[in-house]
Amino acid sequence: MKLYDYHAAPNPRRVRIFLAEKGVEMETVQIDLAKGEQFSEAFTKINPLCDVPVLELDDGSHISQVHSICRYLEEVFPENPLFGRDPVERAMVESQHHLVQLNGGMAAAEAFRNSTPGFANRALTGPHSYAQIPELAARGLQRLDHWFEDMDAHLADSQYLVGDYFSVADIGAYTTVGFACWVKKTIPAQCTNLQRWFDQVDARPSSKA
Amino acid sequence: MKLYDYHAAPNPRRVRIFLAEKGVEMETVQIDLAKGEQFSEAFTKINPLCDVPVLELDDGSHISQVHSICRYLEEVFPENPLFGRDPVERAMVESQHHLVQLNGGMAAAEAFRNSTPGFANRALTGPHSYAQIPELAARGLQRLDHWFEDMDAHLADSQYLVGDYFSVADIGAYTTVGFACWVKKTIPAQCTNLQRWFDQVDARPSSKA
Repeated sequence: MKLYDYHAAPNPRRVRIFLAEKGVEMETVQIDLAKGEQFSEAFTKINPLCDVPVLELDDGSHISQVHSICRYLEEVFPENPLFGRDPVERAMVESQHHLVQLNGGMAAAEAFRNSTPGFANRALTGPHSYAQIPELAARGLQRLDHWFEDMDAHLADSQYLVGDYFSVADIGAYTTVGFACWVKKTIPAQCTNLQRWFDQVDARPSSKA
Repeated sequence: MKLYDYHAAPNPRRVRIFLAEKGVEMETVQIDLAKGEQFSEAFTKINPLCDVPVLELDDGSHISQVHSICRYLEEVFPENPLFGRDPVERAMVESQHHLVQLNGGMAAAEAFRNSTPGFANRALTGPHSYAQIPELAARGLQRLDHWFEDMDAHLADSQYLVGDYFSVADIGAYTTVGFACWVKKTIPAQCTNLQRWFDQVDARPSSKA
């Protein structure tokens, strides 16, 4: 297997941290998104959706989309499960993961891609062009404020997003906090539960992946 | 178990069709979204996120978010698997499911909630209020056009979204086509592969759930 990656982007980082938590080393191929390599003829044959990460299997087939890649890796490297350890816990992890992507990840993406000059007409990832909507950038910032507050409330009586169990949902939330910095949103001082959680995840060796 | 449901909404419909495919009958409780029952004190205790569906387990605990509910149901009712039958197929189902929600479901929601007078300041589901953005409604319609075309291309040499295997991704796509009708977007005449797929899914008894 090998991973098509881009060191500076938040989405492939989720897979790198996931692999580090599993203790799995994997060959990576850098696709330089800043140079537009995701639109090259060679790469669009690998992934017509023009995004990273992409996992290449040994038979030459490909899996795209972060969550699908991580689910596959969970099955082939079952040690140290990150998607939950029983049916209810797995449902809770899926639910928290979904909410992080919806309310945190998409909010940061809305704020960033609708306001950054280099993304004019590239307000969404993928093969289609969409104009930036300045009001959507502003809404993204507003949503991040709510997301920080909601996460803080959730973490008031929970060590991680699902009780005392570190999961793929925490990985997604951790990289989203990093992504939010791109639009100058950082954990507010009053969100002490969220900050405590962040410091804990940040102290894990996997966070450096 | 019982399901908090609303008969007219696209998201709980995904769970009802999923249950019908499994051949499982379940008690449902209708939460009338048109009357705002999702914001009642009684229901926000069940789900502070103020949305349906919610699955109530026999111990009184709750699982929210469609995909989490379906994953849980897949584990407790493993017959007739709808999330894939081996690790690669499961990754493909997850990937297609994600793309349907991202490019179809969210596009329809953007178009609908940002243009419908009854959703003023309710442009997103959940406990927070967000103003409508008319440009986002227009972008949602544009995205649905692309989604129809992309689905049509994908289905040119594939019976269902993942080869000849009917999955939870098809259920999500089928209800999204229904949701798109709310903003007057229907399968374009030239999308014959998509229409063929739709007719096939529509002919399944589960589609009436």
